[in-house]
Amino acid sequence: MTNPAGRPDRTTITRLREKGSTERAELDALLDSALVGHFALADPDRGPVVIPTAIVRDGDRVLAHGSTGSPWMRSLSGGAPTCLAVTALDGVVVARSAFESSLHYRSAVLFGSCSVLEADEHAAALDLITEALIPGRTAEIRRPAARELAATLVLALPITEWSLKVSAGWPEDPPEDVAGDAWAGVLSFERRVGPPRPAPDLSDGIPVPLSVQNLGR
Amino acid sequence: MTNPAGRPDRTTITRLREKGSTERAELDALLDSALVGHFALADPDRGPVVIPTAIVRDGDRVLAHGSTGSPWMRSLSGGAPTCLAVTALDGVVVARSAFESSLHYRSAVLFGSCSVLEADEHAAALDLITEALIPGRTAEIRRPAARELAATLVLALPITEWSLKVSAGWPEDPPEDVAGDAWAGVLSFERRVGPPRPAPDLSDGIPVPLSVQNLGR
Repeated sequence: MTNPAGRPDRTTITRLREKGSTERAELDALLDSALVGHFALADPDRGPVVIPTAIVRDGDRVLAHGSTGSPWMRSLSGGAPTCLAVTALDGVVVARSAFESSLHYRSAVLFGSCSVLEADEHAAALDLITEALIPGRTAEIRRPAARELAATLVLALPITEWSLKVSAGWPEDPPEDVAGDAWAGVLSFERRVGPPRPAPDLSDGIPVPLSVQNLGR
Repeated sequence: MTNPAGRPDRTTITRLREKGSTERAELDALLDSALVGHFALADPDRGPVVIPTAIVRDGDRVLAHGSTGSPWMRSLSGGAPTCLAVTALDGVVVARSAFESSLHYRSAVLFGSCSVLEADEHAAALDLITEALIPGRTAEIRRPAARELAATLVLALPITEWSLKVSAGWPEDPPEDVAGDAWAGVLSFERRVGPPRPAPDLSDGIPVPLSVQNLGR
């Protein structure tokens, strides 16, 4: 991607450009399927820091939440420049050489600064975050208490400056390797959710709710 | 973790301290099971940047490789301060409230600077990287060509300054929620590898090699 002047900017893909995508729908699909992203901060005293955290897309922004007591949430909420990487590993590319072997992945990198959601958006954003993790759950449980809302910050990073790289193809071996006798192909990763295990302090007779039943499907 | 003077340093865990671990064996287990880590750089012009890349542990260091033409590889190989996050998502914690619901995860953060591996270690390091992705593969394929070795940089980040946070417990609901009628428990994620799909240009009669058969197990 280039900026309006056509010069390379920080979203310009410098390596494996053919894997670059400018399809917003592809970006959204990745953001919607990922549970976690990695934020970077450049701390003036401590240097670069990476913070993994749960994310959810809300239209044209990515939301992340954390404790009001977290130093990195405070830095980000103050508008510090940040970069968010959202990465999905989709499989293994087994080529005929080590050099061409690699992973199937989708990799988004977003740049910008976060803002803090105001009170009128705060509770709805936390619901979105819960629904991203356990769809249908918010309708099954009590509403957040005032002290829980007060203990949580929600940050929003606008989806404006981003790049996306997708590796989803077959091995690209040179002809001399294709002519050889080594195998080549791909294997996909599948993330499954195991069966629900009830908490040790769960009272008798409380059934597995629909949201949890659906997680395993 | 604190530094020798007992003051908090950049590996000090400030939130959910009870999830902190100083067990090097736990760190190694995470590094050995993860395929990818996220490096951060603080670029003087572009601000913080996150780069996802394949990693492998080699004793007391983490190796990462990339193209000699990659700007971020060049920055890291020049000794720029960096932070590497290695994150595994292990499951969902379904609590009786949204506030207590969360993920099972293992999260390592390492700080330091990378060095570039010299020629005498370079090929062995690339073998390690291939073996981390596809165990047993290096014995089945040709050795890397000189031009392939020359096109690849391998960086080593020493495992010296790090912190580890592990979330693996049951929901921690307050007594008033435990007394209610909401379900609580955990569900684990399982990553499976799907069946091998041969490349379209694979010659007839080349069987699926042992390394690839074992990937799916």
